[in-house]
Amino acid sequence: MVRPRLELGIDCRDPGSLATFWLAALGYQETRGDGDPYLDLVGPPGSLSVFLQRVPEPKLGKNRLHLDLYTATPEQLVSELVASGAVVMGRPLPDVERWEWQAMLDPEGNEFCVCREED
Amino acid sequence: MVRPRLELGIDCRDPGSLATFWLAALGYQETRGDGDPYLDLVGPPGSLSVFLQRVPEPKLGKNRLHLDLYTATPEQLVSELVASGAVVMGRPLPDVERWEWQAMLDPEGNEFCVCREED
Repeated sequence: MVRPRLELGIDCRDPGSLATFWLAALGYQETRGDGDPYLDLVGPPGSLSVFLQRVPEPKLGKNRLHLDLYTATPEQLVSELVASGAVVMGRPLPDVERWEWQAMLDPEGNEFCVCREED
Repeated sequence: MVRPRLELGIDCRDPGSLATFWLAALGYQETRGDGDPYLDLVGPPGSLSVFLQRVPEPKLGKNRLHLDLYTATPEQLVSELVASGAVVMGRPLPDVERWEWQAMLDPEGNEFCVCREED
């Protein structure tokens, strides 16, 4: 079977507003499209294609799909994303000094995690 | 801001069973882990890291995140994935001879699309 090319879609109420957050979270550069209903988030060559899609229905319960963002400096990324409108969900885990992941919500309540990239 | 490395998590009831489907859908080679709760789906170098995560709660409503699988032969991929346990959701769209995408459900009801990669 041939390996398909992947794109990840995120349903939302307001693609334009949410794009600001996800460009910062992903470290992507720019948007493409009019956000009605699609707005592409464009990263460097080889990065995952992500798009935001305006939908009429509200979010119901916990997402079954979520992104983990791995970085060597997760404390810094958590701080930056909180400043960009994200919310932390409880304490980072496991409950030790050098935690491995912090569950968070984007500005529309979508779950994601910031994770420690081990050396 | 540094660009984090991405992994995509898919919540499910049965990682081992669902892994068979998603390895075929993504064209990935093997699993890593014991599926309790995590099972990694390993693709070629440079491909998106995807993992299945066993969760106790059921799926509620439509997923807010979904994958689009782009291929030059979408009719063939749809047929192969139906044979692997996926279900088509309605007719492909737009409703013309050379359709652009077909919405589908994986064996646990997670939405995804098979999309035509234009030349």
